[in-house]
Amino acid sequence: MNRGELIHQIKTKQSYLCVGLDTDINKIPKHLQSTTNAVLQFNKAIIDATKDCCIGYKINVAFYEVLGAKGWDYLAETLAYIPSTHLKIADAKRGDIGNTSAQYAKTFFETYAFDAVTVAPYMGEDSIRPFLEYENKFTIVLGLTSNIGANDFELLKTSDNKFFYEKIIEQTASWGTPENLMFVVGATQSNQLVYIRKLIPDNFLLIPGVGEQGGSLKEVSEFGLNDNVGLIINASRAIIYASSKEDFAEEATMVAQQYQHAMQPFLNQ
Amino acid sequence: MNRGELIHQIKTKQSYLCVGLDTDINKIPKHLQSTTNAVLQFNKAIIDATKDCCIGYKINVAFYEVLGAKGWDYLAETLAYIPSTHLKIADAKRGDIGNTSAQYAKTFFETYAFDAVTVAPYMGEDSIRPFLEYENKFTIVLGLTSNIGANDFELLKTSDNKFFYEKIIEQTASWGTPENLMFVVGATQSNQLVYIRKLIPDNFLLIPGVGEQGGSLKEVSEFGLNDNVGLIINASRAIIYASSKEDFAEEATMVAQQYQHAMQPFLNQ
Repeated sequence: MNRGELIHQIKTKQSYLCVGLDTDINKIPKHLQSTTNAVLQFNKAIIDATKDCCIGYKINVAFYEVLGAKGWDYLAETLAYIPSTHLKIADAKRGDIGNTSAQYAKTFFETYAFDAVTVAPYMGEDSIRPFLEYENKFTIVLGLTSNIGANDFELLKTSDNKFFYEKIIEQTASWGTPENLMFVVGATQSNQLVYIRKLIPDNFLLIPGVGEQGGSLKEVSEFGLNDNVGLIINASRAIIYASSKEDFAEEATMVAQQYQHAMQPFLNQ
Repeated sequence: MNRGELIHQIKTKQSYLCVGLDTDINKIPKHLQSTTNAVLQFNKAIIDATKDCCIGYKINVAFYEVLGAKGWDYLAETLAYIPSTHLKIADAKRGDIGNTSAQYAKTFFETYAFDAVTVAPYMGEDSIRPFLEYENKFTIVLGLTSNIGANDFELLKTSDNKFFYEKIIEQTASWGTPENLMFVVGATQSNQLVYIRKLIPDNFLLIPGVGEQGGSLKEVSEFGLNDNVGLIINASRAIIYASSKEDFAEEATMVAQQYQHAMQPFLNQ
């Protein structure tokens, strides 16, 4: 999927919602937990329930990896079930020296046909380049994250009085283009979002942290949207665990619809 | 494995060599490439060939992940084949918000029984804590890496005139102890090693980059060893691809022995 197709999807659906499939076998409804392929069944139900309100799915790789080889089969089957119209993000936060990052890029863009993968920037240019070499794929680099730990290093000041995350975003932005490079900015960081938008006016931002982590959809949308949308808001637990009972899919639809309805006015301002 | 056992192993074997299993199906000897379970056969031969000269194995997860679910089976079978006396490191460079890092920690310490896992520090304390909670396991945090990209962010100066990697090491060291926390320091960074040893006199350092990447075993050993060894030097390609012919295992033994012989004098100074 390229950027033009993504923007088209968002405008057509009137939604910039991405649903995060952080599927934990211990958190899915009890009646499913003991069934065969429970994770896969749950994911399929969630995809059916939300696909009309969202433009993408973010698969949190950790929750599949923990199940061993079987988990990777669930991941592959979940990926295959996502409609081709939807952006498929591997939330993997990989990054290593060049020849190893090339293997990670191949994993998520070839072995598994994701459209995008999240990447950790600490190790610098040669750890990110191999991902950027793929056409019509997106590398989503960690900018300023939503967690409390963001204060430890991301918000340290550099000798030229910038935040460390700013240096990461500025420098990394020069290695790619808005066609192949997005950044993660936590919804809980909306006070920094105005500034980040100035640094990278054109790149899409992937914003987790609305919902369970307490970020505001209104603030994020007001500060983050640009002329070409430029924003994907991810919600995971708030949607997929909206109900722990047999009505989990209906409740997931309801919450996803609430997000979509809340987003619509911002797209038409 | 705990720190005492690791130190005992090193002193008994007179070696602080770790062999990196970055096994790439396209780089293993041609006569093996077309056989069933080629990756696994190659790894077993390398382990047999090197186990007397090394104290651990570092499995570079990227090279297994790229093969899909089958790759994770190879990883598991390789892990099972490593003698229980040897330190088993997952080179995975994971790190995410707390609840996701907990899944990654579970993956490498429970689903797969590694003794240690490499972790990327960018997202701060809650991304690292879940790994540190395991007893008799090691969390190996990226300090200063061996690649050219280390210059991009790790060596940026902070407002208090420190390198960014120093802040990472200083802060992270306070979250763990030498019993459960090691740091990655690239062998190509030996000019920084004296200083790093002052920052963290007691923690073990995992040093990649000797060999293919050009780091010096002598410098690293002189600057990095402490009273309790404190050093693990990893070599991957220089050993496992020492020969691309049928004698690959014999050549791997020879190169591993060269490392071990070169290390021995430093342990007895």
